[in-house]
Amino acid sequence: MTISSPSSQHRQSSQATINADLVNADLVIEARWLAAVNSKNTLLEDYSVIVQGGVLVNLLPTTQARHQYTATSLVCLDEHVLIPGLINGHTHVAMSLMRGIADDLPLMAWLNDHIWPAEQAVISERYVKDASLLGCAEMLSGGITCFNDMYFYPQATAMAVSQAGMRANLGLPVLEFATNYASDADDYLQKGFEAHDSWRGNPLITSSIAPHAPYTVSNQTFEKIVTYAEQLRLGIHTHLHETHDEISQSEALYGVRPIQRLADLGLLGPNLVAAHGVHLLPHEIDVLAEYGCHVVHCPSSNLKLASGIAPVASLLRSGVNVGVGTDGAASNNRLDMFAEMRLAALLAKGVSGDPTALPAHQALEMVTINAARALGLNDKIGSIEVGKQADLVAVKLSDLALSPCYDPISHLVYACGREHVTHTWVAGELRYSHGVYANIEPVELKEIVQTWQPKLKPYKH
Amino acid sequence: MTISSPSSQHRQSSQATINADLVNADLVIEARWLAAVNSKNTLLEDYSVIVQGGVLVNLLPTTQARHQYTATSLVCLDEHVLIPGLINGHTHVAMSLMRGIADDLPLMAWLNDHIWPAEQAVISERYVKDASLLGCAEMLSGGITCFNDMYFYPQATAMAVSQAGMRANLGLPVLEFATNYASDADDYLQKGFEAHDSWRGNPLITSSIAPHAPYTVSNQTFEKIVTYAEQLRLGIHTHLHETHDEISQSEALYGVRPIQRLADLGLLGPNLVAAHGVHLLPHEIDVLAEYGCHVVHCPSSNLKLASGIAPVASLLRSGVNVGVGTDGAASNNRLDMFAEMRLAALLAKGVSGDPTALPAHQALEMVTINAARALGLNDKIGSIEVGKQADLVAVKLSDLALSPCYDPISHLVYACGREHVTHTWVAGELRYSHGVYANIEPVELKEIVQTWQPKLKPYKH
Repeated sequence: MTISSPSSQHRQSSQATINADLVNADLVIEARWLAAVNSKNTLLEDYSVIVQGGVLVNLLPTTQARHQYTATSLVCLDEHVLIPGLINGHTHVAMSLMRGIADDLPLMAWLNDHIWPAEQAVISERYVKDASLLGCAEMLSGGITCFNDMYFYPQATAMAVSQAGMRANLGLPVLEFATNYASDADDYLQKGFEAHDSWRGNPLITSSIAPHAPYTVSNQTFEKIVTYAEQLRLGIHTHLHETHDEISQSEALYGVRPIQRLADLGLLGPNLVAAHGVHLLPHEIDVLAEYGCHVVHCPSSNLKLASGIAPVASLLRSGVNVGVGTDGAASNNRLDMFAEMRLAALLAKGVSGDPTALPAHQALEMVTINAARALGLNDKIGSIEVGKQADLVAVKLSDLALSPCYDPISHLVYACGREHVTHTWVAGELRYSHGVYANIEPVELKEIVQTWQPKLKPYKH
Repeated sequence: MTISSPSSQHRQSSQATINADLVNADLVIEARWLAAVNSKNTLLEDYSVIVQGGVLVNLLPTTQARHQYTATSLVCLDEHVLIPGLINGHTHVAMSLMRGIADDLPLMAWLNDHIWPAEQAVISERYVKDASLLGCAEMLSGGITCFNDMYFYPQATAMAVSQAGMRANLGLPVLEFATNYASDADDYLQKGFEAHDSWRGNPLITSSIAPHAPYTVSNQTFEKIVTYAEQLRLGIHTHLHETHDEISQSEALYGVRPIQRLADLGLLGPNLVAAHGVHLLPHEIDVLAEYGCHVVHCPSSNLKLASGIAPVASLLRSGVNVGVGTDGAASNNRLDMFAEMRLAALLAKGVSGDPTALPAHQALEMVTINAARALGLNDKIGSIEVGKQADLVAVKLSDLALSPCYDPISHLVYACGREHVTHTWVAGELRYSHGVYANIEPVELKEIVQTWQPKLKPYKH
């Protein structure tokens, strides 16, 4: 399927006829602005990116690019800023079909009376594949090219990711209790490794072991996970210090707070991605920094479930690498990294009392290069630099709600919404543009909703 | 100019030929869902609103409506929820052209080095008219039908409001110090009353006296304002308890906090609209409740300027009427009541630790009927009820990012963005639909930006 683009210009270059020395590239994108998200926070103007085999092979002023390259596909973005693909650092993408099923409820009523019974009723390979595809479509249209997931049947999520043409780091979920998916921790682990094998060779999908949380996983299982993660060189993705209850329960059962328990079990390290990190004592922030752990801030979900507000400014000041995530659509209720980026930047200021906290360029780093670092993918993605994968997003800044534009980076964070995304490329392939997906048909998504909504409706609040 | 609508059906009804007893209405809107925002939080399904002379004359099931009415204009909204027009409870609309001019700065550097010099350079009747038109266009496209403003040259804002066909309550600004607009408090008052006279007879525009803030207005001037407000039966709109500095300055100069000072001066009452109310002691919340004052919560602006987070859950619990506002585009940087509504609902939960705080229907009330009450307009606008003005907004809920939809009210608050607004009517007139304005040309807005951006650019951070 060919994606057409009404507002930007796609044309076959004819410069080759002028100069035989021109190099032909797979894709050339000419951008009004280019936010590289490199170490110098460079904002480039009238710059072109040159893509060959899915990789960024050159970045140069457009006037120069036109003298050096022809392109199989040339995209001119006169009113846009080109940014690295956004990375959703923590989600449960297959919860997309539970969006808004139960809001404004106490946490345990939300889980016990709605989310868990709904999951018990529907969770299957088919459900996860369908719901993940809906979530992938939502994310692609909002400029998200990669996500860090944790859910049952990850091989089904992998199928949706492959169809959408996205990048993902899929968690191999581990719990102690039985679900439709697995019977006990060993069964989860075994099924996880089978899933992991199923996407080997797919360059867009990587794996983490994903023990659900300190309150759902035993010491013995955590110890096994440490060993497996070392042997297989995998990351570990878990919920950590999300709620007060989680912490007091740990103190009652183990005599220590969860971070201390995980430290004692050998879990902490540069391969640990801790989602949430809402309730952190100052020395715990230091511990996370010393071990090189990564925190994924989920501001909408933490507010909506009344978990609290993570001390992001303090984490960043202490040198902890912090990404941002949407969490699942049941507790957000969007898979929208523009909303999370803005909220993260605003909250950090409001909570710290410092209007210079988490400035726009740092917020943009959190949703790109910081998240890539958390996933161990920062050599491949997270910035627009030569040698990296061409995971790119065009954001149109000429909308009247974005006018005037004095600073494109500020606009990306404070003024833009995901509706201003016009193009999303993954590894140099255009996967979404102006409402059209390369590999997903609208009717397919409609059928998915029509199939599952009636099955889920009985669990509605 | 005629607004065409690609996704909904506008057709001339031919039912009159079938039944001569049918009544012809100016406008009939058939909606899949209708959120009345009445005292019972009614969500109606497959309902029609009947509009005659700009007023809602009937609400009834669509099946019945088709047997009772023909329509000069019939709009079928099969996938939409119809809601009351949103009311922006506090803004400085003419700051739209300063959107993003200086972000991530300490408050006093932001004001002294950027905003105030920029204002000094450009503020004029022409600037205010132009910038207000841009802001009105942004608001109409996001479902805002009415706003409560405070800025220099309000007669120029009134001209933009009239062109856009919106509703507004315009502040007659009062300060002690000289600006391009006026020389001293008496001059501000006199110019304000002249402005007030200029829009008399315009049914869409009302006035408040708008003393800027406790730290910029003297006791003597506040006393005059109380007298004038009584004589002219006008509301009073001021910034109140926005920052710690405002409060400590008041304690140093007057020996009391601003709310106590205003109480002593006779300012507090049911005609007072206090923007912000971030820093409130428990007894001050009681005082605001006892006097029947209204508070306008501006969550994005308060976070962005690091002012703090207003205790909205406590205010509501104490019976204070709370609306929501965007503040100006320079400190937000959007004029987007969907963003404010969502943020208000999320923050109230996160800060109170109670996930049931500020549920979706209450958040919707805050941006509609509560704001109408604050402006003394709740007999005219703020809900979809017979006898009220037809200020109406259609929000399309079939977008994939809104699928599935279990509860339209929850979706309005947690999942929708302003980009899902398809139609905005003010007093029964369609003022915006699908990117097209009834009375504003895109080229006009482009020229406004091109005229003023270069003049403002020297004040950019």
